[in-house]
Amino acid sequence: MRMYDIIKKKRDGGCLSTEEIRAFVAGYTAGEIPDYQAAALAMAIYFRGMDDRETTDLTLAVRDSGERLDFSKIAGIRADKHSTGGVGDKTSLIVAPTVAALGVKVAKMSGRGLGHTGGTVDKLEAFAGFRTDLPKEEFEEIVNRVGVAIVGQTATLAPADKKLYALRDVTATVDSMPLIASSIMGKKLAADDDCIVLDVKTGSGSFMKTEEKSFELARLMVEIGRRAGKKMSALITDMDAPLGRAVGNSLEVIEAIDTLAGHGPADLTALSVALSAEMLYLAGRGSREECERTVKETIASGAALRKLAEMVEAQGGDPAWVMDTAQFPRAAYERKVLAPRAGFITRMDTEALGLTALSLGAGRNTMGDKIDLTAGFYLEKKTGDRVETGEVLATLYTSKEELLDGAERSFLGATSIEDAPPAPRPLILGHID
Amino acid sequence: MRMYDIIKKKRDGGCLSTEEIRAFVAGYTAGEIPDYQAAALAMAIYFRGMDDRETTDLTLAVRDSGERLDFSKIAGIRADKHSTGGVGDKTSLIVAPTVAALGVKVAKMSGRGLGHTGGTVDKLEAFAGFRTDLPKEEFEEIVNRVGVAIVGQTATLAPADKKLYALRDVTATVDSMPLIASSIMGKKLAADDDCIVLDVKTGSGSFMKTEEKSFELARLMVEIGRRAGKKMSALITDMDAPLGRAVGNSLEVIEAIDTLAGHGPADLTALSVALSAEMLYLAGRGSREECERTVKETIASGAALRKLAEMVEAQGGDPAWVMDTAQFPRAAYERKVLAPRAGFITRMDTEALGLTALSLGAGRNTMGDKIDLTAGFYLEKKTGDRVETGEVLATLYTSKEELLDGAERSFLGATSIEDAPPAPRPLILGHID
Repeated sequence: MRMYDIIKKKRDGGCLSTEEIRAFVAGYTAGEIPDYQAAALAMAIYFRGMDDRETTDLTLAVRDSGERLDFSKIAGIRADKHSTGGVGDKTSLIVAPTVAALGVKVAKMSGRGLGHTGGTVDKLEAFAGFRTDLPKEEFEEIVNRVGVAIVGQTATLAPADKKLYALRDVTATVDSMPLIASSIMGKKLAADDDCIVLDVKTGSGSFMKTEEKSFELARLMVEIGRRAGKKMSALITDMDAPLGRAVGNSLEVIEAIDTLAGHGPADLTALSVALSAEMLYLAGRGSREECERTVKETIASGAALRKLAEMVEAQGGDPAWVMDTAQFPRAAYERKVLAPRAGFITRMDTEALGLTALSLGAGRNTMGDKIDLTAGFYLEKKTGDRVETGEVLATLYTSKEELLDGAERSFLGATSIEDAPPAPRPLILGHID
Repeated sequence: MRMYDIIKKKRDGGCLSTEEIRAFVAGYTAGEIPDYQAAALAMAIYFRGMDDRETTDLTLAVRDSGERLDFSKIAGIRADKHSTGGVGDKTSLIVAPTVAALGVKVAKMSGRGLGHTGGTVDKLEAFAGFRTDLPKEEFEEIVNRVGVAIVGQTATLAPADKKLYALRDVTATVDSMPLIASSIMGKKLAADDDCIVLDVKTGSGSFMKTEEKSFELARLMVEIGRRAGKKMSALITDMDAPLGRAVGNSLEVIEAIDTLAGHGPADLTALSVALSAEMLYLAGRGSREECERTVKETIASGAALRKLAEMVEAQGGDPAWVMDTAQFPRAAYERKVLAPRAGFITRMDTEALGLTALSLGAGRNTMGDKIDLTAGFYLEKKTGDRVETGEVLATLYTSKEELLDGAERSFLGATSIEDAPPAPRPLILGHID
């Protein structure tokens, strides 16, 4: 099987066989296939696409390129949710303990933030002492005992994806549906869950800017997961404004705690309930309506919040911080951003706002950068809100005072205020099941 | 100017600017742009194409990547012809001295054979002592004195093309019209000719298998040449059967000499006259009809043959071999291939026949291979001819007896004999001027 023939077949619009796809991924991961042939194939896939069978084969080859987790020592049904990434998305911190409080196990591997999007692992490190690099045995023990643990992805997870993604990033081949889907699902399927709920973001803060592409990606990933034997569903949700009001690591953790305590922002609460209910539904805990009611009760009872505290304690953090968020360190500097005119907020360029948070120290440009856990912003107003001239739009937080001027400019540049209110946009735009 | 942006622009169907194309070619030649980005761009060009302006820019950037020849010391009008390569194509050996005998200078750089096609430089080396690596001053001196010289391409000619071609060859991006045209013309324009006649082959022995693509390539190369300030035209000619009857280096030289002496095969004679006349026409020597008449007279007078002898002598060969072809060494072994059945030859898979000649020792699989100058075959019958069972189709020649069995099988496999005669096919299928 020659790589040349594989490239040519795809270039000419053919379907690659399972063997061809596995030979490519294995050969490329092993360094036997050079970058230039992989780049040519990626570009051919960009133009010709892949059908669902090919995309599934690619996903499974990516999954099998590294270590696969074995959760057989974890008792009971295991469910996970995966978001394609956005700004202010702290739902994992809410959903995982909520579902665990209802007896469905959550053994979660999460990523770190990069560019305009944050990462759950970074956020959890806002708890002083929180350990996200647990050894396998301890991870399993905590999941069995507490019901939930969240750790970072290991370096041995899907190495083919790391190598391919780095190549796609410099060859303009990131934006290809089968390559995106296989990258996300290849990592996700290396974990050993029974049920996976996908939260596919759409809008200016997501990497799928159009609804049509978001629906297609959701459909494709659900299909891949099912072909791999998982119970799957997906929500397509709005990322045309930050989710909730807090953006930045400790700010988001505090907001997640507030939401588990029953007084979070409406959008964040609604999405967290929907995702939790979907996980329970896939796990066989009744109808969607029943699951949603159970989730709300569990949050109202305080059981979900207590579960988060248990997890924090098990992973080395101080559970007292969950019950008293004043314990989290606060940023040294803050700045109120005032509305330059009266009107309605008609649009928030959410990717730009993610970059504003990054510029305050809340994120990374490259994987080596260090994060300021206290940095970010808190929105007083969001898309659709009426504002008066001089009213506070948001508060910016950072440890470096000199970053405030630039961040304020970039915040205002990303926020449109006009005379007429915008059309309302639903939070949940669709559902693939 | 980032290479990423160049790739993305072409991927999205944009036109690259002159600056972008020059930055790519210069950066890639200098090793500053990695192979994987060049491969991604080549595949994007494969899918999106390039317009004539872009293709011309790419051609000129390839031309300018290495040494450009300066023929200002050569007096008079300089004309050249270039063939896209075929099997049994020895027209350069006929056309160059014919045109030179009529006072138009031919300062020709030719290539070596690779794969199923032969190269003029290899063929000339069938003359013992013939030197194809003349220093620049000697090359110019011979062209000025004799009117014609043929040398090999220097290593410093269009290095961008060498590097790009090697990459395209392993990434399935050879078969792209702008990349093919810029590769051919980039090298051709590095020479300093006034007039260029292109012989674009079409059919089973050429690398353009369809007439449509051959016409498009011819049109594109003529356009590029004109934009570069050259007088240009192109013939689209048949390569669905070997040209003439001889295939293999010394066999082809002998056939070229026979043709210059006025008793060559009809197809080879006709094409050589047409190409020579076209060069004279571009050089301003009268109407096409007048030029064709002059060419025929020059051949009939023996002047063209004498010009070949002069060139051979000037470049270190023995001119006596031109007047007496029995001087050429002959192969140690030969085999008559007999018709396995009666009927008409309906098809010769000409690429396969080129590989048959290669298998006898007449060609190269890779540039390092050594050639058996006496090897090849001579056709007694060609497409359209009636044959009886057991009649001689061809004679195979080689220095290695053990190669004959395989070559005979491959010759017969490439030759179709059926009951009904095939439709006749014209030799010259079209003309771009």
